[in-house]
Amino acid sequence: MRTETPSAGALESVRIDGRVDGVLAPLERGLHYGDGLFETIACLGGRPRFLERHLERLAYGCERLGIGFPGHEALGREILAVAGEAERAVVKVLLTRGAAAARGYAVAGSERPTRVTLRYRWEAEDPALARDGVRVRMAELRLGENPHLAGLKHLNRLEQVEARREWSDPGIAEALMFSSSGRLVSGVMSNVFLVQAERLRTPRLDRCGVAGIMRAAVLRAAAQLGIAAEEAALDAGDLAQAREIFLTSALIGVRPVRELAGRAVAPGPVTRALQQALAPLLAGAADA
Amino acid sequence: MRTETPSAGALESVRIDGRVDGVLAPLERGLHYGDGLFETIACLGGRPRFLERHLERLAYGCERLGIGFPGHEALGREILAVAGEAERAVVKVLLTRGAAAARGYAVAGSERPTRVTLRYRWEAEDPALARDGVRVRMAELRLGENPHLAGLKHLNRLEQVEARREWSDPGIAEALMFSSSGRLVSGVMSNVFLVQAERLRTPRLDRCGVAGIMRAAVLRAAAQLGIAAEEAALDAGDLAQAREIFLTSALIGVRPVRELAGRAVAPGPVTRALQQALAPLLAGAADA
Repeated sequence: MRTETPSAGALESVRIDGRVDGVLAPLERGLHYGDGLFETIACLGGRPRFLERHLERLAYGCERLGIGFPGHEALGREILAVAGEAERAVVKVLLTRGAAAARGYAVAGSERPTRVTLRYRWEAEDPALARDGVRVRMAELRLGENPHLAGLKHLNRLEQVEARREWSDPGIAEALMFSSSGRLVSGVMSNVFLVQAERLRTPRLDRCGVAGIMRAAVLRAAAQLGIAAEEAALDAGDLAQAREIFLTSALIGVRPVRELAGRAVAPGPVTRALQQALAPLLAGAADA
Repeated sequence: MRTETPSAGALESVRIDGRVDGVLAPLERGLHYGDGLFETIACLGGRPRFLERHLERLAYGCERLGIGFPGHEALGREILAVAGEAERAVVKVLLTRGAAAARGYAVAGSERPTRVTLRYRWEAEDPALARDGVRVRMAELRLGENPHLAGLKHLNRLEQVEARREWSDPGIAEALMFSSSGRLVSGVMSNVFLVQAERLRTPRLDRCGVAGIMRAAVLRAAAQLGIAAEEAALDAGDLAQAREIFLTSALIGVRPVRELAGRAVAPGPVTRALQQALAPLLAGAADA
């Protein structure tokens, strides 16, 4: 049986606030409230893919939540150190508001952000996944809408955990999610693009969802290729009319959907053009 | 200046999985995803108020999220031990799905729940708060709606953190929150009740919000007193028409609102009757 879920690797190393012997405080606000952000970075041959983009998004999230950002250079160095020389690894960075001074939601202002950097094993993937595509279901759980948190890769991920609990079939790679008002948002762990009448469309993330690094890379690649693309309010009707559907994430790159809730979808020319355009970036040849 | 915010106490003791020398795992799903639940229990003279109700809610939350519940007796004993003999203390219990086996949202099923029990200092409160009431603002942030998680006291609390960041005036005790569709839900850290035409009304928590222990105690007390009460879909219009408004939580009991967004509200007879009826329970005379 071919496993189509993204490789979920084992932990290889971890640092807390830069220390291999660091510990998490029992008053850690990341634990008590999910008061923080994270990034998941694909590393090939010790090179963190899209490193600057990840750091930019993290810095932006910190600004939105009022969390002190440790700085591009220091954090970048730490990520490189954690990535090491591994041929393939995933580095996950958690950045929280830090340990609380006392009980309660209120931010004292004296908190010092907590930094957790983890390296996970990242198994080589079956090339058939990018070529033939994956099978996808529709999630029953709908995402709550909160414009204040929309786009951020924050630590409140219980909706994703619960949506992921809806299926156990390893032949299903992902589930697409609607929001409470019926808008198409994303996959549980990826962004989604549709091709309708030669036009590339992806859900606007102004109410919920995570503004993915690969999603942005695809939009830039589309602009360079002259493919008309837009972020829009999409719904089930758009999904039904889509001629091509693909998923994106920092780890999977661009992955065609070949079956959506039992309906066959053929990987098409727009998906192929974008995969080809992004291939050098995904191979780690350059950052953009 | 009188401080009207609930007393935010300092940490006095903590156990992780029952051990004073316990540590949190870096792969703790409570940290990575907010994948867990919590309870905040008021303890007077070593007696955890409404202990059985807290344990029942936690067990129900575990059932909803598919997290193994450690059992009423074992957890009850630990809470009693942590509460100790302190005259006043708050015991907070966090129960998460535990450390992950690998990266990703998927639940392996082999996780062992993590239990964190913390005791905080709980300062004596100014009796004027219960008598005269508190000043309350309206939150700008609106809560996302997710029926699947509604009612649960789960660890995804970034909305509350962000709403609490909207004000720093210590003279403001709480902020009332609407949901994304415009429904009145609750305070940031309390439930809310309105009195309209001698009728007690509190927001129905079928889309978001936490089903508070004191909220349930108030509804039971109202039934015993013969006060007509209902859980309903309420909005800004209901708030404007309310003759009495009060807040409830496990810590504050029943607390009148004397000013809402600049409008004066008088603590009234329904609030007083409920305060009186609940006084013996809040003093720890009995559990119900």
